[in-house]
Amino acid sequence: MLQNQTHTETEALKIAVIGSGNVATHVAKALSLHHTILAVWSPNPQHASRLARLLQTQSVTDISKLPAHADLYLTAVKDDALAEVARQVASLHTNGLFVHTAGSVPQTIWEGHVNRYGVFYPMQTFSKQKEMDLQEVPFFIEAKHADDAQLLTQIARTISHRVYPATSEQRKKLHLAAVFCCNFTNYLYTLAADLLHEDGLPFDAFLPLIRETSDKLHQLPPYEAQTGPALRNDRTVIEAHLQALADKPQLKAVYELLSAGIQQRHASSTD
Amino acid sequence: MLQNQTHTETEALKIAVIGSGNVATHVAKALSLHHTILAVWSPNPQHASRLARLLQTQSVTDISKLPAHADLYLTAVKDDALAEVARQVASLHTNGLFVHTAGSVPQTIWEGHVNRYGVFYPMQTFSKQKEMDLQEVPFFIEAKHADDAQLLTQIARTISHRVYPATSEQRKKLHLAAVFCCNFTNYLYTLAADLLHEDGLPFDAFLPLIRETSDKLHQLPPYEAQTGPALRNDRTVIEAHLQALADKPQLKAVYELLSAGIQQRHASSTD
Repeated sequence: MLQNQTHTETEALKIAVIGSGNVATHVAKALSLHHTILAVWSPNPQHASRLARLLQTQSVTDISKLPAHADLYLTAVKDDALAEVARQVASLHTNGLFVHTAGSVPQTIWEGHVNRYGVFYPMQTFSKQKEMDLQEVPFFIEAKHADDAQLLTQIARTISHRVYPATSEQRKKLHLAAVFCCNFTNYLYTLAADLLHEDGLPFDAFLPLIRETSDKLHQLPPYEAQTGPALRNDRTVIEAHLQALADKPQLKAVYELLSAGIQQRHASSTD
Repeated sequence: MLQNQTHTETEALKIAVIGSGNVATHVAKALSLHHTILAVWSPNPQHASRLARLLQTQSVTDISKLPAHADLYLTAVKDDALAEVARQVASLHTNGLFVHTAGSVPQTIWEGHVNRYGVFYPMQTFSKQKEMDLQEVPFFIEAKHADDAQLLTQIARTISHRVYPATSEQRKKLHLAAVFCCNFTNYLYTLAADLLHEDGLPFDAFLPLIRETSDKLHQLPPYEAQTGPALRNDRTVIEAHLQALADKPQLKAVYELLSAGIQQRHASSTD
């Protein structure tokens, strides 16, 4: 109930968008339904124009031309580019609130450049080609000033049901875990698809297995959900698989490291 | 339409179940809705009794006491135990059809022991604790005799919409790819949960990310769905992550191998 009240009570804010990649696109698009996007700037002017058109707003080619009266400066650029953006936006002399969306960058990257700052981290994998409903995406919030943390929480709740506070240290840990859960699992899907492609076998047939592997986690912790030849220590199968990967050193290395890891992690278990 | 006709036309068969693990339990349970389970035998007599009770049938303690008039002998035991089961069932002198459910065992494991044999491979991750609808689970079928392959296809269609033929070689490749898509991804979830647990952070917050990572594959091939610091070659983040894993050699090794793999796989791309 409180969340819904907060939602309806949050007034429309004026937002400037810095960045034009996947995160900027998805988050700005969701925010644009409840707030006013004043302008977009991006290191890539063409991408800035494209995102501005999508958001039905203007793009600026010079970061110093961003409007100074925005309430929020939503910054979603490459982590490596954040320090330079922080330095440049100092020239705006605005009292607006600057946030970045990065998992592994401390909020103090803004320190010394702007008065009000924080973090607005959506823990999700964004692809431009895929539409996304952000309502179930967890947003982790941090701000230098407590009332800005409160404001960011309210803003996040206009687009998501799952909004949590997190310190920079906690967020770094979340991001690291997310790399394992998302980026690395997707790489394993890629390796599997490559294997199947060789023999003209359809990757689509794997979608139910992949879905079930993730759905299981709603009922079982991953440790208990583990199955497969490594867990069973089924040497015949493991040897046959390694044999099949003999001429694929990268896949073989992954197979060996992860199988050994499963066995080590479950060594004390009686499963 | 043809599938539905086949479904309704398949008469109820008499089935004996050999094995009492996750696969035996889920597949026998689904088959029991359309067919008659005559008996269960398993290397573990207690587990055999439990599965027999679940299926409202009898268990036998000696494999040679399995009824000889079953149409189908559904065999789901550890891969390493299959050769011994094949040897033992020869004494039944039945003309029933023997199938195993293993991804990586050729159908010829039955050769010389029984007249009619084949494979009935459900490509899914089964946990006893979790109920499962098999309708979307792909079943891969193979048999020595063409009419038995036809019969197995009909039986599989009584419990699943997705039934495909596959040679032993193809099935081995499917199983290998499944280990990457399922067993190894689940291990990555375990590593992430371990990391979060250390700091008292909730793994539940990761379920939307995990769901999206798998759902994405319905729209994009995994190669195109890849995101993350390794893909972006974001050295600052990668170094910070490796630093955070400095005292966790297994996680660090996984992080390094999979990050290098992502960069190598995408090296020729302009993403």
